[in-house]
Amino acid sequence: MKKIVVIGAGAAGLAAATRARRVDPQARITVLEATREYSRGTCSLPYYLSGELGSAELLKGISQEELSRRNIDLLLESRVEKIDPLRRQVFANRRSWDYDRLVVCLGSRSRPVPLVGQNFSHPRLWTLRSIADADRIRQSLRELKPRRVAIIGGGYLGLEMAEVLALSGCRATIFHRQATLMRLHPDTHETVVRTVLRHGVDLRLECEVSLVDPDCRNRTVEFQTKNGARESLGFDAVFLAPGVVPNTGILAEAGARLGSHGGVLVDARAETSLSGVYAAGDGVEVPSSWSGRSRYVPLATVAARWGRVCGENAAGGSLRGPSSLGCISIRLFETEVASVGHPQDWETADSLTLDIGGDSPFARRRSGRATFLTDSRTQRLVGAQFVAPQASAWADLASLAIREEKTLADLGELDLSYTPPLSSLWHPFLLAGRQAEKARYSSLEQKR
Amino acid sequence: MKKIVVIGAGAAGLAAATRARRVDPQARITVLEATREYSRGTCSLPYYLSGELGSAELLKGISQEELSRRNIDLLLESRVEKIDPLRRQVFANRRSWDYDRLVVCLGSRSRPVPLVGQNFSHPRLWTLRSIADADRIRQSLRELKPRRVAIIGGGYLGLEMAEVLALSGCRATIFHRQATLMRLHPDTHETVVRTVLRHGVDLRLECEVSLVDPDCRNRTVEFQTKNGARESLGFDAVFLAPGVVPNTGILAEAGARLGSHGGVLVDARAETSLSGVYAAGDGVEVPSSWSGRSRYVPLATVAARWGRVCGENAAGGSLRGPSSLGCISIRLFETEVASVGHPQDWETADSLTLDIGGDSPFARRRSGRATFLTDSRTQRLVGAQFVAPQASAWADLASLAIREEKTLADLGELDLSYTPPLSSLWHPFLLAGRQAEKARYSSLEQKR
Repeated sequence: MKKIVVIGAGAAGLAAATRARRVDPQARITVLEATREYSRGTCSLPYYLSGELGSAELLKGISQEELSRRNIDLLLESRVEKIDPLRRQVFANRRSWDYDRLVVCLGSRSRPVPLVGQNFSHPRLWTLRSIADADRIRQSLRELKPRRVAIIGGGYLGLEMAEVLALSGCRATIFHRQATLMRLHPDTHETVVRTVLRHGVDLRLECEVSLVDPDCRNRTVEFQTKNGARESLGFDAVFLAPGVVPNTGILAEAGARLGSHGGVLVDARAETSLSGVYAAGDGVEVPSSWSGRSRYVPLATVAARWGRVCGENAAGGSLRGPSSLGCISIRLFETEVASVGHPQDWETADSLTLDIGGDSPFARRRSGRATFLTDSRTQRLVGAQFVAPQASAWADLASLAIREEKTLADLGELDLSYTPPLSSLWHPFLLAGRQAEKARYSSLEQKR
Repeated sequence: MKKIVVIGAGAAGLAAATRARRVDPQARITVLEATREYSRGTCSLPYYLSGELGSAELLKGISQEELSRRNIDLLLESRVEKIDPLRRQVFANRRSWDYDRLVVCLGSRSRPVPLVGQNFSHPRLWTLRSIADADRIRQSLRELKPRRVAIIGGGYLGLEMAEVLALSGCRATIFHRQATLMRLHPDTHETVVRTVLRHGVDLRLECEVSLVDPDCRNRTVEFQTKNGARESLGFDAVFLAPGVVPNTGILAEAGARLGSHGGVLVDARAETSLSGVYAAGDGVEVPSSWSGRSRYVPLATVAARWGRVCGENAAGGSLRGPSSLGCISIRLFETEVASVGHPQDWETADSLTLDIGGDSPFARRRSGRATFLTDSRTQRLVGAQFVAPQASAWADLASLAIREEKTLADLGELDLSYTPPLSSLWHPFLLAGRQAEKARYSSLEQKR
């Protein structure tokens, strides 16, 4: 009977365990989770915090009962301290487990912040990595009634929390290191900026936070602006969303190879450089058949799908992991923001930006913006970003178009649905195709 | 200077005229429209009627001013009585126009109904083909305050009107000849039926209406049920949506070849069998590279895109028309219904139906159903239908997947966006891919 041990009970680890069970009904499968939470639905935390998801149970992808029913042992509060890949053992809680195949899902941690005191349980200092964190923020909101909240980091979590906080009556200010939120293209970013400003969210872009002090009399965030000026801003609470870095601890100590982004390297079958040890989730860099390079894509979609690959292969199968195009979306007040493709591929790309919608009375057709990024040599789509009420679905469509190596002109050939309450007769993809054709015409004319 | 005459100022005709202008800035372009309405946005009529679109101006795709600015002559109330393809002349209002290239967009008309009196201007008898029709229905609703409305025909227009009438307080009953509304697959149809019943809309399926009499004392619809019983139902008003048949009159008289669906046949460049005469819109059958057969797809999307092809080629270009997959969607109360693929291709197809969503508190993730249809030999996707709050976007994605000849298992490889308020970590396409894989597993096991 094969012994499979899985470290970590998040999206990746539980996808691995359930997949392994499906492939091998006999294997002994043990999941060791360091905390008291499992299948916690990290992406849903802002909406549990906002109250839209009424109970923490709604966040769970799978229940402990369901895991038991599938004969998967889940041991909580079991932090693995060491992996011995030669003896095929892991050590946790003064016990050891033998394994035939090991799946390691260590997740990520926040980037460091220049925080005075480094006291992360300070009631005016918030992080959001667990249900306990969310409960703590809810309590703070209730008891301290903060008015001004500084959000450190303008990635997707920072923006999601800006929405949640603005709707709960706080005055949120996002501090972001880069020139654009969520690594957006400047064109789509412009529309996002208009949206958040309209909802009373302040932005400090291209600024480096140098000090966060929740204990001084004025409770300040000190920062340096683009032109070098030092400024400070008072706040009642700070939400930390500075981005994540991969956890690699016990895997790195056991000798697993790391990649250029600092994550554990895996091959196309999700195996690390340690034989019999698979890894997935936010601690891992995934290979990309697309670029030939490995990518660090800390998203639940990637974690869950590569987790499945770990489970399949740990149980004796031979599945290759899917390339990720970094397809991501968020809801942002009355609209959505979505992006597909990897920003590093865009540096030399051509871009086409279209303003769409307009004064339609239908909510789903409210105005927005689409940016298409194409390889300047092949004209193929390499990325797309949308800010519009249907942005997430358009990103999904762009994702398939990118995978199929479509050019912008090809998009003009798509057969897309149309009904006035939901869509325009000229879908943005068709408009993009038309623009590409026009460009072709004018270059033909120039040649004549 | 080339003379281009366009007959018909609907979606197809105006797409042809504007496209021709772009290709040939010098051509003399004249559009002859039989009625007083042009660019009327037929698909929007139910929402003009419902009041969601506040003014008829909002329905217009292009204004007369814009057409003038582009130097396109639009002559309203100019019904063409005859085409002489040898002399290259058309005749309307006792005048004739010479042409070098002709684009004919005759549209469609309602299928005949067994209507006593055949008085289509009866205030209790409604059709919806023009803004004038919509105004007439609005007036009837206001003045006659009908309570019971019979809808003859359960295609997309019948369903859209069921929604509009139910929301305006009428008790609507749809009479439909076929077993399923909108030619849906029985599985998705079941969900549509539940939706409309929940909103108080009655259904009479597989019934043949034998008599509609708006003048008798009881104002009845008589019909024959599936098992041959004759019944009748009283009503206060009848909405006729029995489906459409192609208008071919002046083209057929001029000798144009017709196809097996009764529409005018065109080639891949939208030319009819008459040299120099192009045609598009609901009067035409379009060739399908997909099946090798011609299809009758009376949709605005097809009309507009083949109209463009007419315009391009009439002006001297050489553009091929796009194959249509019949991608269509409607809003239906709180959900959407969408379909892609041609029902005739499904007869021998395998189907996979998934119930999706469930008790999510997020409106966009409310429960629904997805049916995927695959060729039983190649496993390729040939159609898909969805009833869900994001059905239309999923149909668009399925449309591209069909075009790219994806199998169900391929869908499992897609990289799709995920954010809790908008989508599930396991998108229906990924679930379908998983199911296909499971099926592969179990068939492998059988083989062992």
